[in-house]
Amino acid sequence: MADTYVLVHGAWHTGAEMEATAQFLRERGHVVHCPTLAGNRPGDDRSVIGLADAVDSLAAFIEQQDLKDVRLVGHSYGGMVISHMPHRLPGRIRRLVYWNAFVPLDGQCLNDMVPPHYRELFDGVAAANGQAVMLPFPIWRESFINDADEALARSTYALLNPHPYRTFTEPAVLPQPLAALEVGKSYLNAQQDTALPHSLPWHPRLSERLGLFRLVECAGSHELCFSNPSLLAAKIEEAGRD
Amino acid sequence: MADTYVLVHGAWHTGAEMEATAQFLRERGHVVHCPTLAGNRPGDDRSVIGLADAVDSLAAFIEQQDLKDVRLVGHSYGGMVISHMPHRLPGRIRRLVYWNAFVPLDGQCLNDMVPPHYRELFDGVAAANGQAVMLPFPIWRESFINDADEALARSTYALLNPHPYRTFTEPAVLPQPLAALEVGKSYLNAQQDTALPHSLPWHPRLSERLGLFRLVECAGSHELCFSNPSLLAAKIEEAGRD
Amino acid sequence: MADTYVLVHGAWHTGAEMEATAQFLRERGHVVHCPTLAGNRPGDDRSVIGLADAVDSLAAFIEQQDLKDVRLVGHSYGGMVISHMPHRLPGRIRRLVYWNAFVPLDGQCLNDMVPPHYRELFDGVAAANGQAVMLPFPIWRESFINDADEALARSTYALLNPHPYRTFTEPAVLPQPLAALEVGKSYLNAQQDTALPHSLPWHPRLSERLGLFRLVECAGSHELCFSNPSLLAAKIEEAGRD
Repeated sequence: MADTYVLVHGAWHTGAEMEATAQFLRERGHVVHCPTLAGNRPGDDRSVIGLADAVDSLAAFIEQQDLKDVRLVGHSYGGMVISHMPHRLPGRIRRLVYWNAFVPLDGQCLNDMVPPHYRELFDGVAAANGQAVMLPFPIWRESFINDADEALARSTYALLNPHPYRTFTEPAVLPQPLAALEVGKSYLNAQQDTALPHSLPWHPRLSERLGLFRLVECAGSHELCFSNPSLLAAKIEEAGRD
Repeated sequence: MADTYVLVHGAWHTGAEMEATAQFLRERGHVVHCPTLAGNRPGDDRSVIGLADAVDSLAAFIEQQDLKDVRLVGHSYGGMVISHMPHRLPGRIRRLVYWNAFVPLDGQCLNDMVPPHYRELFDGVAAANGQAVMLPFPIWRESFINDADEALARSTYALLNPHPYRTFTEPAVLPQPLAALEVGKSYLNAQQDTALPHSLPWHPRLSERLGLFRLVECAGSHELCFSNPSLLAAKIEEAGRD
Repeated sequence: MADTYVLVHGAWHTGAEMEATAQFLRERGHVVHCPTLAGNRPGDDRSVIGLADAVDSLAAFIEQQDLKDVRLVGHSYGGMVISHMPHRLPGRIRRLVYWNAFVPLDGQCLNDMVPPHYRELFDGVAAANGQAVMLPFPIWRESFINDADEALARSTYALLNPHPYRTFTEPAVLPQPLAALEVGKSYLNAQQDTALPHSLPWHPRLSERLGLFRLVECAGSHELCFSNPSLLAAKIEEAGRD
């Protein structure tokens, strides 16, 4: 059955990095969009763009395309953005799929959910780089794309773009708790994802904030879009279907 | 080698729902029985039947069939029932296999091991339905059979029968702690089973009550008997063999 | 690419038990050594050999062979030994790979990281056997090699040798915390390893002491070297490569 998917990238990524996964979903018969959020586009001013701007840009995309019954997938930081859509676009979102993604409480920012050593690292990098943050390669290689070989780790690192730090520090505004939402909710968890340490994990720590939700899991790191996009597409479909 | 297995179903199920799995075990050379417990049979009075009745019915089945060296598998609620058998039927049980099953302490009832929101839900449903409980479809679809497509989720939901609530509230009577039993003990854990939330999980929270036990795991939801009975049969054999 | 691996066995094992895994790594083009530590060699006096002796024996092996850029893999107790090598052999170790292995803090002994019932068991066995410990077969079969059939459980148990207890009670001496080391660090975790109970697990409890590290996981028990050496070799390569 042809379903409509919107895949929302994480920090340091753009929609282009979701295209390999999208193509596998299209081969399964679905309509798939991969927008790039405000803040990660070429020429965006990383010193001023915050979470509300990214939220606005996604809402505008879905409205302009007039998408309905959307299965809205958010990766990592993308979870901060998709969490705003059911309230913002009533009637358009059929299911939220969090793929190793942040699930905020009202008033929480992304930095509230990461370990202190990440906040310290990001603070320092952002202060030195006009409020744009990059991830050091050793963290990318060991903690984000641990299932890849070195060549893939390096070629994908070269694709990343500086990320506007205000999107990590600006709080989510959620008039209704996510657990109370009527839309479907799924959490897709790659089991070897150590972008968050397993002592402070994605699942069940953040996933259970969704109330009733569907768990889907598979092997892999935080960056399945690079290391195994066909598996990722299959699991997004298991998470996104009715 | 031909081993003797007895597969004890969970709440809302009957032995018939274990037959697909049993057939795969028979093809591997084993003798397999799938009795239906008192309380889940057609015509049973759900308002009065409790845990002790279910225990009596399983003991009677094993004695009437004169089964020995039994590898006794309990699913979910079935764990409450099989836990009584080594003391009740001395010399007949070779190994207990808990498949995402409750492991009670003496004096504990099933409801003592589930999250408060389940108890509240069950209390309300039972009060309104003559002490019989059913599971709402959204919980079945998202939390119990999350690895199935919608068609299988619906067709299997149609097979369920109202469950006598007294089996959830009547305490287990275990003269000896399970950890002290001489029989073999295994725990089979399907990794995406969210029938209990992963913050209050089957394993290791309940499994480690068994003392020395053998862990076997595989991918899947709480309802592997429907979503992947051949995998379930293979894993039951890994858990049940000497 | 031909990398140099040194595989360091766990308690009760010798290098010979790592040979099947080593052979799969050699077929992938690597140079692999499987030394036997002091204390586990035929004729070694189990009543006197301690952790420092085992550390000395591994350092001597690597120096005598003049190995460089070593990817040093430690299994279980072997983690206590490899943790000393970066400081002891500066410039020779490229990466430490802990395979379900102990990661000590400075001054900690192996016994400090195991549950109390193991310490009591080991204390009693060692006192009765001249400070050598053996593992009772039921623990081996259920908790260490839970993924094997009974025949493999018995044939591998017959290969084990009495282990010098002083290596479990003598503390590690680590002038620098492992998290601060410049060398690469990986943790390979077999998901059904219950040699340590999952309420007191290998990962993330011990792995996160490494600071920035690469997680690699696979299905299997503590004894993958027997139950699935080809899978173990593939995962060691994922953990050990740059």
